[in-house]
Amino acid sequence: MGHDSHGVVRTLTYMNQVEDGTIKPSGAIELIHEHGAAIVIDGNWNFGQVIAKQAMSMAIERAREHGMSAAVCRQTGHIGRVGAYAQQAAAAGMIGIGCVNNPGTGGLVAPFGGAVGRMGTNPLAIAIPGEDDEHPFVLDFATSVAAEGKMRIAVNKGVEVPPDYLLNSDGQPTLDPNDLYPDEAGNRGALLPFGGPVAYKAYGLAMAVEALSGSLSGAGVAGNGKPGGNGVFFMVLNIGSFISRDEFDESFGGLNTHVTQPPFREGNDEVLTAGEPERRRMAERLANGIELDDETLRQMNEAAVMVGVGALEL
Amino acid sequence: MGHDSHGVVRTLTYMNQVEDGTIKPSGAIELIHEHGAAIVIDGNWNFGQVIAKQAMSMAIERAREHGMSAAVCRQTGHIGRVGAYAQQAAAAGMIGIGCVNNPGTGGLVAPFGGAVGRMGTNPLAIAIPGEDDEHPFVLDFATSVAAEGKMRIAVNKGVEVPPDYLLNSDGQPTLDPNDLYPDEAGNRGALLPFGGPVAYKAYGLAMAVEALSGSLSGAGVAGNGKPGGNGVFFMVLNIGSFISRDEFDESFGGLNTHVTQPPFREGNDEVLTAGEPERRRMAERLANGIELDDETLRQMNEAAVMVGVGALEL
Repeated sequence: MGHDSHGVVRTLTYMNQVEDGTIKPSGAIELIHEHGAAIVIDGNWNFGQVIAKQAMSMAIERAREHGMSAAVCRQTGHIGRVGAYAQQAAAAGMIGIGCVNNPGTGGLVAPFGGAVGRMGTNPLAIAIPGEDDEHPFVLDFATSVAAEGKMRIAVNKGVEVPPDYLLNSDGQPTLDPNDLYPDEAGNRGALLPFGGPVAYKAYGLAMAVEALSGSLSGAGVAGNGKPGGNGVFFMVLNIGSFISRDEFDESFGGLNTHVTQPPFREGNDEVLTAGEPERRRMAERLANGIELDDETLRQMNEAAVMVGVGALEL
Repeated sequence: MGHDSHGVVRTLTYMNQVEDGTIKPSGAIELIHEHGAAIVIDGNWNFGQVIAKQAMSMAIERAREHGMSAAVCRQTGHIGRVGAYAQQAAAAGMIGIGCVNNPGTGGLVAPFGGAVGRMGTNPLAIAIPGEDDEHPFVLDFATSVAAEGKMRIAVNKGVEVPPDYLLNSDGQPTLDPNDLYPDEAGNRGALLPFGGPVAYKAYGLAMAVEALSGSLSGAGVAGNGKPGGNGVFFMVLNIGSFISRDEFDESFGGLNTHVTQPPFREGNDEVLTAGEPERRRMAERLANGIELDDETLRQMNEAAVMVGVGALEL
């Protein structure tokens, strides 16, 4: 999908988490509580991707019965791209919503008015079935102005970042992406919630993500919880429990036509809806392959050696 | 609460809507469909405030049984401040989420990359109970960078607005709030979704608000539906169906302490959480009264005369 920060770049991190016991590949995925449409899953520190996929499957099943459902997960490894699970619901003809936090960590994103990082990037995803299965609406965004990985890329390229992205370690606005990373004394800057002068909106969303995926799940919140994984909140709405699928498709399809019509802003020759940029990137990569940088390849080789798989010649 | 754009300033508009038949004060509020935790309400064009309060009450009741619930409303007048209903859920010890669109209108907010307005300000609200009943978390924000009313205030004050707020009628960025309003030829500008360079995030949220409150409800979406009211989506999560209220309060309360601690950014002497600014404004107004401008008073008098209530001496 082109979200490189959530792809093979994490292989070595995941393998190291298996080595140090943070991830337990044998952990049983248990349904520990259930009330009506609400389910609570304890992943016992299995891989987040495995737990999250199963949790969303269970939520989809319950949404058929109850019209909607919510699943929360605790003791869960990093689940990867949260949009993937929202898409899982859309593929089943339902509206999927998902968000995750980083319990016990989160010194990365400053609250509105604060000078230092207090939360993670707390992403939120919403997927809505399209008129055909190939074109779901898939919104998937960090409540911070950017993912940390994009700041790392700016460092590597030696370029400045736009205003309202970063604070330095003194809590002052900065355009230098290096300011995000620890200096010799160990002090670091912070990312800002998105929105510039109205970033209190995304800061509020980040707090709501903590409440849903951290507090409601029992996984823990920024600054208080076992680090190394994600707190997870998934919700599913069964469209057919509210309105016929045909009526819904006609309405939402009509909206898509309405918003994507011309005129466009200077420098744009189209208006896209959420999910379309990723679909194009996927098509391009399926055709041409995925380019990996040397460091990612080196890390994948290191992970390969750890598990006794032959490393690639580099 | 200090959201003047949703207060008595609308009295005359509402009365005019009764006069012209858009609002039908005798409209029956009907539960027209129900499946598990999902309910669909037809307000038959009664006042939105009456319908929305009842819809949220029904949703709260069902969330006790199912762990969660969702209510959508069609044929519903303007419901006022959407945060009020999310707060209604928080007052019942539950997490409340609400959003509204403006079916059949919405030439106000441009999609990301578009040059003209296509949607309304599509607000989203999330309320979460606090450790005590007096201090819920209440996030309530327009997915546009600002409400239209704030641009009107900037016009009246003769001040510029910040960058990334507005496009003029040629689709070019502008700092002049007058550009939002129709010129002699009837051309007008547009508000932008919030987020500046990453406003595709809030644009996506605005689209999701349309899907939930417009398409799922059957009320209609921007550009297609009967204008004059709101499409409504409410959701309630019963905290106790996931985790004990004590555990939840300890977790979310701890997060609040974590994010609001110093250090603060220059020019700030505190970090606030959502709902606190409104609580302070309410306390101030309860103590000192609410100042109304002459035009609002004139309109209230006009409405008073319409219904045979004595007008104030101005």
